[in-house]
Amino acid sequence: MYSIQGTSPDAMMREMDELIKELYPICRSITGNGVRQTLRIIQRQIPLVIHEVASGTQVFDWTVPKEWNIRSAYIKNVRGEKIADFADSNLHILNYSIPFKGKLTLDDLKKHIFTIPDHPDWIPYRTSYYKETWGFCLPHRKLLGMQDQEYEIFIDSSLQNGHLTYGEYYLAGETADEVLLSCHICHPSLCNDNLSGIALMVSLAKHLSQTVRRYSYRLLFIPGTIGSIAWLALNESRVSTIKHGFVIAGVGDKGHFTYKKSRRGNAEIDRVFGYILRQSSDGSQTTDFIPYGYDERQFCSPGFDLPIGCVMRTPHGQYAEYHTSADNLEFISLGSLKDSFDKCLSTLTVLDNNRTYVNQNPKCEAQLGRRGLYQSIGAQKRVGEMAMLWVLNLSDGTHSLLDIAERSGLEFSVIKKTADLLLEHDLLRVSDSR
Amino acid sequence: MYSIQGTSPDAMMREMDELIKELYPICRSITGNGVRQTLRIIQRQIPLVIHEVASGTQVFDWTVPKEWNIRSAYIKNVRGEKIADFADSNLHILNYSIPFKGKLTLDDLKKHIFTIPDHPDWIPYRTSYYKETWGFCLPHRKLLGMQDQEYEIFIDSSLQNGHLTYGEYYLAGETADEVLLSCHICHPSLCNDNLSGIALMVSLAKHLSQTVRRYSYRLLFIPGTIGSIAWLALNESRVSTIKHGFVIAGVGDKGHFTYKKSRRGNAEIDRVFGYILRQSSDGSQTTDFIPYGYDERQFCSPGFDLPIGCVMRTPHGQYAEYHTSADNLEFISLGSLKDSFDKCLSTLTVLDNNRTYVNQNPKCEAQLGRRGLYQSIGAQKRVGEMAMLWVLNLSDGTHSLLDIAERSGLEFSVIKKTADLLLEHDLLRVSDSR
Amino acid sequence: MYSIQGTSPDAMMREMDELIKELYPICRSITGNGVRQTLRIIQRQIPLVIHEVASGTQVFDWTVPKEWNIRSAYIKNVRGEKIADFADSNLHILNYSIPFKGKLTLDDLKKHIFTIPDHPDWIPYRTSYYKETWGFCLPHRKLLGMQDQEYEIFIDSSLQNGHLTYGEYYLAGETADEVLLSCHICHPSLCNDNLSGIALMVSLAKHLSQTVRRYSYRLLFIPGTIGSIAWLALNESRVSTIKHGFVIAGVGDKGHFTYKKSRRGNAEIDRVFGYILRQSSDGSQTTDFIPYGYDERQFCSPGFDLPIGCVMRTPHGQYAEYHTSADNLEFISLGSLKDSFDKCLSTLTVLDNNRTYVNQNPKCEAQLGRRGLYQSIGAQKRVGEMAMLWVLNLSDGTHSLLDIAERSGLEFSVIKKTADLLLEHDLLRVSDSR
Repeated sequence: MYSIQGTSPDAMMREMDELIKELYPICRSITGNGVRQTLRIIQRQIPLVIHEVASGTQVFDWTVPKEWNIRSAYIKNVRGEKIADFADSNLHILNYSIPFKGKLTLDDLKKHIFTIPDHPDWIPYRTSYYKETWGFCLPHRKLLGMQDQEYEIFIDSSLQNGHLTYGEYYLAGETADEVLLSCHICHPSLCNDNLSGIALMVSLAKHLSQTVRRYSYRLLFIPGTIGSIAWLALNESRVSTIKHGFVIAGVGDKGHFTYKKSRRGNAEIDRVFGYILRQSSDGSQTTDFIPYGYDERQFCSPGFDLPIGCVMRTPHGQYAEYHTSADNLEFISLGSLKDSFDKCLSTLTVLDNNRTYVNQNPKCEAQLGRRGLYQSIGAQKRVGEMAMLWVLNLSDGTHSLLDIAERSGLEFSVIKKTADLLLEHDLLRVSDSR
Repeated sequence: MYSIQGTSPDAMMREMDELIKELYPICRSITGNGVRQTLRIIQRQIPLVIHEVASGTQVFDWTVPKEWNIRSAYIKNVRGEKIADFADSNLHILNYSIPFKGKLTLDDLKKHIFTIPDHPDWIPYRTSYYKETWGFCLPHRKLLGMQDQEYEIFIDSSLQNGHLTYGEYYLAGETADEVLLSCHICHPSLCNDNLSGIALMVSLAKHLSQTVRRYSYRLLFIPGTIGSIAWLALNESRVSTIKHGFVIAGVGDKGHFTYKKSRRGNAEIDRVFGYILRQSSDGSQTTDFIPYGYDERQFCSPGFDLPIGCVMRTPHGQYAEYHTSADNLEFISLGSLKDSFDKCLSTLTVLDNNRTYVNQNPKCEAQLGRRGLYQSIGAQKRVGEMAMLWVLNLSDGTHSLLDIAERSGLEFSVIKKTADLLLEHDLLRVSDSR
Repeated sequence: MYSIQGTSPDAMMREMDELIKELYPICRSITGNGVRQTLRIIQRQIPLVIHEVASGTQVFDWTVPKEWNIRSAYIKNVRGEKIADFADSNLHILNYSIPFKGKLTLDDLKKHIFTIPDHPDWIPYRTSYYKETWGFCLPHRKLLGMQDQEYEIFIDSSLQNGHLTYGEYYLAGETADEVLLSCHICHPSLCNDNLSGIALMVSLAKHLSQTVRRYSYRLLFIPGTIGSIAWLALNESRVSTIKHGFVIAGVGDKGHFTYKKSRRGNAEIDRVFGYILRQSSDGSQTTDFIPYGYDERQFCSPGFDLPIGCVMRTPHGQYAEYHTSADNLEFISLGSLKDSFDKCLSTLTVLDNNRTYVNQNPKCEAQLGRRGLYQSIGAQKRVGEMAMLWVLNLSDGTHSLLDIAERSGLEFSVIKKTADLLLEHDLLRVSDSR
C-alpha cells in the first residue's frame, strides 16, 4: 500500500465525508441543474472542465434526451395533507417525471406509484428516462394507509431541450498514453451508489495531481449510460490512447472490495488489480466481466473493448439497500471508502511503475561485486541480491516488473526499487515497446 | 433436449425396436449378401444409395477382399448329431471361413474351434478376413462335452471375387459443409455392436430429413475398417467439406453414454458433445481419443485428422458380452437407445445452430428500450435481457453462440432464441467465416 | 532405468568412491594447482582436454583473476601452538587469501576470522575471489577458546598472473547437435558440493563413450561462475549447437533427487527429467528456475537462455552442512550417487532417443496384418499392438516419441522399440526438423 501524497489519511477521510454530506441532498438526474450544481461543488476541489451536450445530439444508437428539472412535487389527500413530498425526499418522484397537475382516483393513482413491499419503510429509486410518464415512489407502508377515493397530484417539473452536463479532469503525464477513470453522477440522494464513487475519484484526482506520472490520467464525472455513450461518441478519435482504466461504482458500503475484470479478462489492469487483491488477503475478490453493471458496459462494448474494469464493494443488486432510500449516509463507512481508495491507488501505482527493461549485460551475469552491489565474501544471498538476480535475469524486453514480481515471489515495490538501482548503474535500459 | 420432428418418441422407439428385430437374424460380414439384405431393409425407411466396390480394388494400403457368402455349416459327431449348426446361430461359424468338407480327429478339429472358458454358455464372435482359414465358435461347455474321436465338418461357403457393399444417404443443407455420421454394418447376430448403431442412425436420418439444415449431412452404413478405408479412398477429394462428424458404435446397452473425442480433442464437435453431456449430469462422460476403436481410427488417421469422434455407451471391451452371443436382443434397452438418440440429436441441433454473429451497433450498447426489447422503468434485469446483453457484447465475429452460452452460463437454447430476436431487429448479422 | 554399458553397477560405485577419496584432500580454488591436479587425476579415466585461460582475459563483464596458490598457513598463539593450520584442513584458510605474515592483537585478528556459531565444531568454507584480503575459518569453539592478546599469522600464498584452468571432454555423435553437461571443480575439501558432481560426470562420460550417440556430448569440468563465464565467452560462436544440457551440482547427499528446470521451464530437457522423475515415485522433485544456484545462472542468463537445468539432491542452502567441513566423506552416500547417476542416464537415454517420425501411410491405418505385425484373428489388442497404433497415429512430424509416451500412457521404452520396428518395416521415416 502507498501513502497519500501531501495529505494525511485522516484529512482525506474527512474531506470525503464532507463532500458526500454536501452532495447528498441534491436531486441529480442524467441531465439538469442537480448535475451542474454537483460538478460546481467538485470544481472547488479539482479544476474540472464542465461540458454541455445539447439535447437531440445523436450519440451512436442513442439521442441525448431533453433536459429534466424539477422544483416541486407532491400527492395530497382529501384533507390536504401531503402523502409524499419531493421536499422531504427527492426519491419520492419518479426520476424524469413529466409535469402533471390533477386529481386521480386511488385506483388510477396506483398505476403511478412504486413501492418495495419487502421493505415497507424504504422509498425505492426509479427512473423513466426514455418513456415520458410520471410517478411517485413511496414507502409501502404509506401506500397501505392510503384510503381516500381521490388524491391531488402536483408535479412542477420541466422536460425541454437543454443539455447533458458532465465533468472532465485531465492530468498530463510523461506520455500521452492514458488511464481513464470514470464515475457516475446521475443519482439523487443515494450515498453508496454514486456519492462514494465521486468522493473517491476526487481524492484520487487530488493525489494524482501531486505525483510524477508516467501515464496521463483522464477522470470523467458523467451521468451513467448516456454520459459514457456521449463521451465515447464525441471522443472516439482519442480512444486509442486509453491504455488502462476502471469505473468507480459503489465503493463505500461495508462489504469486501470487488474488482470486476474488463471484457478482455487478462488486460494489464486486470492483472494488477488481481495482484494487489491477492496480497491484501482480506476477502477482496476479482470477478469476471459480465455485460451488465456500470459504464464498463459501454467502454467494453465490442466496438471499443477497452481494458477497463470496475471497482465496487458489494456488487450492485446483491444488497437490499441498492436503489432505495436506505442507501443513505449511515449505509456507507469511511473505513470502507479509505480501503477502496488505498486499493485503487496501490493499483495505479503498480500500473504506473510496471515498466519493462532490457539487461545491458545479457550474456552471463554482470559482476555486481565490483559495482558495490553485492557482498564480497561468498555466502547466502540477501533479498536485495536475489531481487537483482531476478530483475537482471528476466529483463529481456518481454517481462514487465509485475511479471518479475509474480515469478520471483518478491514484492513489487522491492522489484521496482531494484530496477531503479540497476538503471542507475547502467545495467538496465527501459524497453516499454512490447 | 429437442423433440423429434414429426414422430412421437414412442413411435420412434417402436420403429428402432422393429428394425433391430428384423435385422438380428441376418448373417452379415464385411462383404456379401447379408450386408446387401441389411441395406435393402434400411432402404425401405430412408432412400439409401447402395454402392458396390469390386474385390481387388486398391484402397490406400489395403485391397478390397473377395466377397464371402455362406449357406450352411455344421460339425457332426459320429452319431450324426450336429454339435454346432450355422442354422442355429450364425456366430457358430468363424466369419470369412473358407469352404471345407471332411472328417477330422478331435485334436485336429480343436485347432479350428474358439470358445470362451470364462463364459461357458456363450458363443464367441471371431473373424478371419485376411487369412484364409476356417473355424467354428462354440459354447465352451459344448467343447468340453465333445468325446468322439472323429467329427464330420461341412462348410458350404464361397470366397470369390465380388464386391464390398455399403450404403450412403446424403441430405443437402443450406451449405455444402458436411456433417459425417457413420455406423458399421458388418456384424452378424450382434445387437449392441452394430444393430443399435444402425437403428439410431436410421432414426436420426428420418428426423434430419424433416428439419431445416444449415449443414449437409452424409450418413454412411459401412463395413468396419475396410468400409471406411474404401470410402475415404474413393471420396478423398471431397473430404475437405467434412466439418464435423461422429461414428455411432454400441449405443443400446444399459451403461452410461460416452463420447470419445476426435484426435484433435478440441474440435467443435468435441466441445458441443462436452457441453450437452455436462448439462445432462447423468453419468455421461467424454473420453480422450485413443487410436483403437471403430472407424474414427480411419477418419482420425494422421493423413485425414478429421474432426470426428465416436458415440457409444459402455466402451467396447469393457463389457463381457462384447463380441459374444450374449450381445443379443435382451442385452440392449430401448430406453438407452432413446437416450443415445436424444444426446446425438441435441448435439447436432446445437452444432447446426452454433453460428457466429456480428453486432451491428458495436460501439456502446444499442438502445434496446426504443425497440421494445427492454423494460422502460429501470430495475433489475430479467434472463431475456441478460441474454441480449451477452449476445450483443460477445458478437464480434470471434465468439460462437456456444462460446456465449458457456461464458454467460445461460442455456444454449436461450442464447439461440435471443440471437434470432436480435437478428430480426437488424442488431446482428451472421458471420460464420471464422 | 537403463543399465550401464560395460561396467557393473558395483564397479561403477567403487570407481566413484575411489575418485572422491583421491580428490578429497586437494585444495582447489577457481584457479591454481589444485584444479590442475584434479583435472590430471580425471584424465587418467577420460581423455580430457585441459585448457588454460590467462589472468586478465576479459570475459564479458568479468576479468579472469590472478592465479592463486597456497603452500602453508597458520595462526600461532603466544605459546607457539598452531590454533589453525592449513595442513590440517584446507578449509581453514579463506580461499584466495593474499600472503600475510605478522602479529595481530586478538581484536584485530577477529576481523579476519569466520566461524559458524550454530555449529561450533564445523569449519566454514569462505572465499574472497574479487576483493584482496586474507582470513581464517575456524570452528566457533576454537575462537571462543582464544584468550591470548596477540597471535602470529602466517600465510604462504601467491596471487599472481597465471591462468584459469578447466577441462573439456567432447564426444562426437551422429549429429553436431550437442548436449552440454557441466560440473564445478573449484571447491577444496567439500564432498557433496563438487566432488559428487565430478565423480558422477566422470562415470557418465565413461558410459556415454561406449554407446551409440545421436547427439554429441560436451562435458565441462570448470570452476564455478568465472569458469562458465570464460567458457561461454571463448565459445560464444558454438553455443547455438547446444540443444540440451544440465549442470551437475551436489548429487551425493542422502536427500531426494531434485531437477531444477531451465529458465525456459518447458525445454525438452525439462520435460524429459519431469517424465523420468514422475515415473520414479520416490520423492524426486522438479523445481522451477531461479536465477541463483550453480552455473545454470550463466547458461540461462537472458543473452543465452540455453535449455540447461541443474541436477542435485537437497538444494544447496537447505542443508546445514553446505559450505562447511561437515560436507565430508561421511556426508555422501554411494547409494545416492548411484541413484543420481541412474536418473541422469535415464534422462539422457530418453533424450537421445526422443525423435520425431512421419507415418509413411498417413491416410487410414496401414494393414499391419499382412506385414505380420498384427494378430490375424480379430480380438482384443495387446500392448505391442496398441503401441503400434499410437505411434502410427501420432507420427505426423509434430509429436516426438515422448509426446506419444505421455499421451498414450505407455512406457517410453515400449514406444521407442515400437518405432524401431515400424521403421524397419518402412512404415515410418525420421523427421526431427521441428
